[in-house]
Amino acid sequence: MIDYDKVAQQVMDRCDELGRISQSEECLDRRYLTKEHQQANQLVGEWMMRAGMMVWQDTAGNLCGRLPSKQQDAPKYLIGSHLDTVPNGGKYDGMLGVLAPISLIQALTDNGVSLPFHLDIVGFGDEEGTRFRSTLLGSRALTGQWPATWSDLPDENGTSLRQAMQAFGLDFDQVHQAKIDTDQLLGYLELHIEQGPVLEEQNLPVGVVSAIAGAKRFDLQVTGMAGHAGTVPMPLRRDALCAVSEMVLVIETIAQQQGVVATVGQINNRPNGVNVISGQTHFSLDIRSEFDDKRDQALGLIVEALNAIAERRKVTLNMEQTHAAGAVHCDSKLQEVLRKAIQQIGHQPLTLPSGAGHDAMAIADICPVAMLFMRCDKGISHHPAEAIKAEDVAVSLAVLDQTLRTLPV
Amino acid sequence: MIDYDKVAQQVMDRCDELGRISQSEECLDRRYLTKEHQQANQLVGEWMMRAGMMVWQDTAGNLCGRLPSKQQDAPKYLIGSHLDTVPNGGKYDGMLGVLAPISLIQALTDNGVSLPFHLDIVGFGDEEGTRFRSTLLGSRALTGQWPATWSDLPDENGTSLRQAMQAFGLDFDQVHQAKIDTDQLLGYLELHIEQGPVLEEQNLPVGVVSAIAGAKRFDLQVTGMAGHAGTVPMPLRRDALCAVSEMVLVIETIAQQQGVVATVGQINNRPNGVNVISGQTHFSLDIRSEFDDKRDQALGLIVEALNAIAERRKVTLNMEQTHAAGAVHCDSKLQEVLRKAIQQIGHQPLTLPSGAGHDAMAIADICPVAMLFMRCDKGISHHPAEAIKAEDVAVSLAVLDQTLRTLPV
Repeated sequence: MIDYDKVAQQVMDRCDELGRISQSEECLDRRYLTKEHQQANQLVGEWMMRAGMMVWQDTAGNLCGRLPSKQQDAPKYLIGSHLDTVPNGGKYDGMLGVLAPISLIQALTDNGVSLPFHLDIVGFGDEEGTRFRSTLLGSRALTGQWPATWSDLPDENGTSLRQAMQAFGLDFDQVHQAKIDTDQLLGYLELHIEQGPVLEEQNLPVGVVSAIAGAKRFDLQVTGMAGHAGTVPMPLRRDALCAVSEMVLVIETIAQQQGVVATVGQINNRPNGVNVISGQTHFSLDIRSEFDDKRDQALGLIVEALNAIAERRKVTLNMEQTHAAGAVHCDSKLQEVLRKAIQQIGHQPLTLPSGAGHDAMAIADICPVAMLFMRCDKGISHHPAEAIKAEDVAVSLAVLDQTLRTLPV
Repeated sequence: MIDYDKVAQQVMDRCDELGRISQSEECLDRRYLTKEHQQANQLVGEWMMRAGMMVWQDTAGNLCGRLPSKQQDAPKYLIGSHLDTVPNGGKYDGMLGVLAPISLIQALTDNGVSLPFHLDIVGFGDEEGTRFRSTLLGSRALTGQWPATWSDLPDENGTSLRQAMQAFGLDFDQVHQAKIDTDQLLGYLELHIEQGPVLEEQNLPVGVVSAIAGAKRFDLQVTGMAGHAGTVPMPLRRDALCAVSEMVLVIETIAQQQGVVATVGQINNRPNGVNVISGQTHFSLDIRSEFDDKRDQALGLIVEALNAIAERRKVTLNMEQTHAAGAVHCDSKLQEVLRKAIQQIGHQPLTLPSGAGHDAMAIADICPVAMLFMRCDKGISHHPAEAIKAEDVAVSLAVLDQTLRTLPV
């Protein structure tokens, strides 16, 4: 019998230890292909070896560990997450999903458990994309999707990706060797903190991710008529800010009704004077859903409503799309395995979408993926205040253990 | 019989001529106690003399002209407006209210009309307050309300009001002599462009001002909870910008229902990122009415509604008053004289409040005041695009003429 609480404490301690490896003295900041990336790979690699795994670093700088099955021709599962952080980040985002499986495997090995598949654990070198402004570099190397043009991607000091790889002991031209053999690859699992408040709100330690949302973004501009705050009566105004206020609320309402998330995060008003009626207001729209058609349907309703507001208020509306990405769906069979595992250890198996991106998005190109979300304090992430409970880690470990025992082969 | 069209053309031509006296080569900019102020006083003073008036400059730099009544012990009326402009201003704001009466008096004199009261026309040296950041300096000198502390008011070059007066040939310590004798002073009339769109909207050349609105201003701050645009579901958000949007609309609605004007002209949002839920939003509120109690009643309803929104949305609201001024009411008898005069020459006598400040606000301290508003193109003012029609000037002249014939003595 595995003592999940004890294993969870090891995971907490290791998150603390790994979280001290930072290129900054003030905060946690560990970026791709840095000396600290190397130190992290070395430390985590040692933990993998102690757990009885075969350890190597791939040609993209990802840290890989394998617990081979006794049957040499067995199929393979992957478990992974990332070892890099954002600047001023937290010590659980990514790392939890690498360290918890390692500690679990050590416990399985110690208990003489044998799996009917090879199990690879990957600690991706880059997910956040902080250094080269392109996300998921680590997981995209596993899928073989590194365009040659990335060679020249510069970091903030002008060092190219190729140069940074060389300094790390890697060769940009050999990155294709990191592409994994998908033959016999049955699926990918990822444990990650939720980075949102849903599990905490529902008082649940873990949940199953249905899909990783696809986002569309827009720049919008409303032009009305500036005027003197004292001399233009209310009915004669064409106040851009009032029109945009109505638009912000209709976006909120439609998003709520349609079950998507939509955010107006940015607003800039002109002339923005205390005694001047607003003449022009710019704002942003970010709309996401785990279902692209649901998102686009909500978007259609929003566009219709915004145009109606603009017409009624006699202002002009311009709308320009600046970003579009499709949703990635988690495999229904793997989701079901996770849900059953959660139920089996006595928790309600909540299914929820992920609004943020994860390595699983890239890996979905080559095999079925599934994600287990773990509660984090107040949903805070990308911040030093990121926090988790050891008892939730114990639940995650139990769910993962149960999952490994029931994964289809 | 006076040919108002011909007189109106003289007014239009003189506005053009006076509008060329500017301290800037690119735009019309004529400020208090400048060389151009002196030139303007000289030019307008000549026109006053040609109209048969006694002309002098008072100790505050205001230009004064008198058409004496034949009865030496007759009472007195004042007509006035200002000769200064804002930077990049128009050539009718203020000037029309000085030049039209002068041309009318010339026509009256030419037609041998005699008035039962002394009539003084005043071209105030400062109404806009551009140079010394304090408005109505000219008219406040007539009311005797220049505090000694104004001596040191600096302009943008560091020249004090006292120094500027000295350079102009005036003495700050003698400004009290500009205070006029209110004995026998029956009232003050001011003709001014509307600087708003109401008359144009109503297709009327002129209107009677009921009151000059009093304004209150506030800085408001709403604090919610910033968060990831992807990971926080709609129902769990405390979006500051959504709360403020609702507040902007409720302010608009209450202002409309209560018959006041209220404006949110300024908004600043944090962190103002495309993919971040708004955590804090600042905005301004400017609320005005010709009736202080009506304004304060609307304000009470607004504050109540804003607090309810803040409570329902679980955000905190802070509100700080930054400005307060009471409304100035125009004299009901003088208003009635103006309305009858408008009717007598065949127009509908619309009564409307003034949302902007005028010299009449200061003069109201010493005698009954009334204002005649004249239509201006699209309500535009404080801008080179400020424009009026000669035919509206003709109507204004006819109304003023009729008024002078019927003013109570």
